[in-house]
Amino acid sequence: MTMTSDGSGTNLLKSWVVGANEADASFPLNNLPCGVFSPGAAGPKSDERGRRCGVAIGEQVLDIAAVERDGLLEGLPSPLFDQPAWNRLMSLEPSVWASFRERLMALLAEGSTECERVEPHLHALSDVRLHLPFVICEFTDFYAGRHHATNVGTMFRGAENALPPNWLHIPIGYNGRASSVVVSGTDVRRPWGQLKSPDHELPAFMPSRRFDLELEMGAVVGTASDGPVSVDAAEAMIFGYILLNDWSARDIQAWEYQPLGPFQAKASATTIGPWIVTALALEPFRVRLPPREVPLLAYLQGDRHGPYDIELEVSLAPEGVAATTIARTNHRELYYSAAQQLAHHASSGCPMRTGDLLGSGTISGPRKSERGSLLELSWGGKEPLTLDGGESRTFLEDGDTLTLHARARGNGYTIGFGECRGTLLPALDMPYDTLEN
Amino acid sequence: MTMTSDGSGTNLLKSWVVGANEADASFPLNNLPCGVFSPGAAGPKSDERGRRCGVAIGEQVLDIAAVERDGLLEGLPSPLFDQPAWNRLMSLEPSVWASFRERLMALLAEGSTECERVEPHLHALSDVRLHLPFVICEFTDFYAGRHHATNVGTMFRGAENALPPNWLHIPIGYNGRASSVVVSGTDVRRPWGQLKSPDHELPAFMPSRRFDLELEMGAVVGTASDGPVSVDAAEAMIFGYILLNDWSARDIQAWEYQPLGPFQAKASATTIGPWIVTALALEPFRVRLPPREVPLLAYLQGDRHGPYDIELEVSLAPEGVAATTIARTNHRELYYSAAQQLAHHASSGCPMRTGDLLGSGTISGPRKSERGSLLELSWGGKEPLTLDGGESRTFLEDGDTLTLHARARGNGYTIGFGECRGTLLPALDMPYDTLEN
Repeated sequence: MTMTSDGSGTNLLKSWVVGANEADASFPLNNLPCGVFSPGAAGPKSDERGRRCGVAIGEQVLDIAAVERDGLLEGLPSPLFDQPAWNRLMSLEPSVWASFRERLMALLAEGSTECERVEPHLHALSDVRLHLPFVICEFTDFYAGRHHATNVGTMFRGAENALPPNWLHIPIGYNGRASSVVVSGTDVRRPWGQLKSPDHELPAFMPSRRFDLELEMGAVVGTASDGPVSVDAAEAMIFGYILLNDWSARDIQAWEYQPLGPFQAKASATTIGPWIVTALALEPFRVRLPPREVPLLAYLQGDRHGPYDIELEVSLAPEGVAATTIARTNHRELYYSAAQQLAHHASSGCPMRTGDLLGSGTISGPRKSERGSLLELSWGGKEPLTLDGGESRTFLEDGDTLTLHARARGNGYTIGFGECRGTLLPALDMPYDTLEN
Repeated sequence: MTMTSDGSGTNLLKSWVVGANEADASFPLNNLPCGVFSPGAAGPKSDERGRRCGVAIGEQVLDIAAVERDGLLEGLPSPLFDQPAWNRLMSLEPSVWASFRERLMALLAEGSTECERVEPHLHALSDVRLHLPFVICEFTDFYAGRHHATNVGTMFRGAENALPPNWLHIPIGYNGRASSVVVSGTDVRRPWGQLKSPDHELPAFMPSRRFDLELEMGAVVGTASDGPVSVDAAEAMIFGYILLNDWSARDIQAWEYQPLGPFQAKASATTIGPWIVTALALEPFRVRLPPREVPLLAYLQGDRHGPYDIELEVSLAPEGVAATTIARTNHRELYYSAAQQLAHHASSGCPMRTGDLLGSGTISGPRKSERGSLLELSWGGKEPLTLDGGESRTFLEDGDTLTLHARARGNGYTIGFGECRGTLLPALDMPYDTLEN
């Protein structure tokens, strides 16, 4: 396994597509992230008909469904792309993922003999609409950021008991709600929920007042499994990674989460980015996990896994105001890799399926400016954050737009993830047409 | 709404199908539960080809796919049954469910003029294999049995703090794992997991030693929703009910569940019965919820919901030994109805989808013989249960077969749910082919 932290050993792979060879382009030939698009940026969101799989290159997206129909993917099983989702390719063996990537590289590399056949299938990214890139089977959210867990634990239980006793032994996670996963650009509605203030005796049903973001990275399960898998086997099952914002209602969670965990606090929406960056594209950026404080049990050990050196940032823009970057952190801060999370997930015999989405947990760094949630940035609301325009925030306000970005920096090239954006709409006046009682 | 507790007001509806009119038959014309079958009881489980939707009547199952192809379902949208799952019908409006039921009743009622066209589509239940009756979208498990929550809370936190502070206000639930849901008759493997005994400093990875059942009823969501729904609207979304055994590893749960809830403890398997009994068939058995100790918030109130008078029982048979009924209880013990659970589930805006499965939570009655889990029956393992054959149990032993049954008793007829059965296989010697470390 390549253990480099700066993409060294891999240089920019040049493409004939205009704009793909710039050092700061998000989508060079090295990247080839997987999305779903429909031509016409202003098209209706609900129009399924025009959707098809695409791969971003330069400032364009290559219509992979058309490329397949045109016979340009010879040597691969077919059809893989007659549906607007990457699940069919994802469900196959990693060797097929590699063949697909090699084939695309051959088509798009500088000097390719197929330029003339490929070029008609390129669309300008500015002219398309992006959709959920895969059918999300089930969604699991983990809690693998040590600084995040420590910060939250300190606020709620004090510094001595910050990390739960199991945290250094188990990649703690809970099952989330796949139906609530939306793609970047989808507005999110402030939820109503059952809340209880410490100074009230009884709970009330009202709009959340402590609505927050969680800066995460999602791992996308490709190959399925039917029983326990080792960490190395789990690593091979992961098709790629995607930006993820797990919107969280802290006040709903505080009242509901004992004894069975977060439920409606996390069910309004989880926004993911439009592009799955494949594990193959990220391999040069693999780094070692932070040192273990206690030895891990054998079922959580492996040889070929770990997080990546991916810079992450999140910005907040109040309505009509320029965005302020509120946190910068790095994927390498994770204490558990996605492969460890997946191996733990399957350890009871739980079948894992193509399209399962595993949230990393909030990724915070050791410094205050590296905290991936407003809960941490405002220290539970006690230390309001001042934005560039002068406004301050403890939790999100209506109209706020959050945008997550990620990039891995190689030798003369960048691997981008696109953007993961969502605007918070005000709560409904009353969420029910009629309440009979 | 009919508020009867004994099915009065509805009498046996007579059918021309042999065996359907006996007072203790599980599948009279009043019932018409929905399943999926394949002809040939010994057929391979993985053979998808022969599967088709069926409705149980007497000791037979009516091939609904064939009935539809034969043009006997005129007036209904079509095709509804070209796939081996009930999801398409379930996704439609309740008025279509009612039309479908009326049409089947007309075909199967004594005096029907269609006997000769229908009869060729009947198969003996003893000659078919039963499969999962619907595609499970997502699975949520609730905690709505007050006696169960009190028992468990007393064991873990003492009698004074038995019920968590939120329990009387919120239908507490957590997201489970749909991929682990299996149909009655599927063997279940004792899981490995990360455990920590109170007398050990460090956890170990080993087979669960406190593996248990949970006697539950599942509610099957039919019509989908995209935002909050009132309790009455939620009630209308529920297509039917099914037996459910939520296998639970108590020792895995004890170590993992703080702070984010049960995860691998509940992920090995959840067994459901083969028959969805429709809400329409159960309507005569509706009962009122137990009295509220504290008033519920308006979003959890409704006019047309509540549990049913359904007798439940579970038996345990050690390998090669006759079964002992270990608990008898009733669906009416639930403190929250499925409609309240569904309304709470959607309250944050969480989209609910056709095929979502909502486990009720373990249903225990007030008496010791009415406890729906071994955790409660053996009081945490301290009071072993003696079986009829002389063996004793605290938790499950390898080779044990658990069978759940349910029935609602009307005037001269019974609504049965079939059986929900699973045999516990021993843990694998080592769940991994190779562990590199």
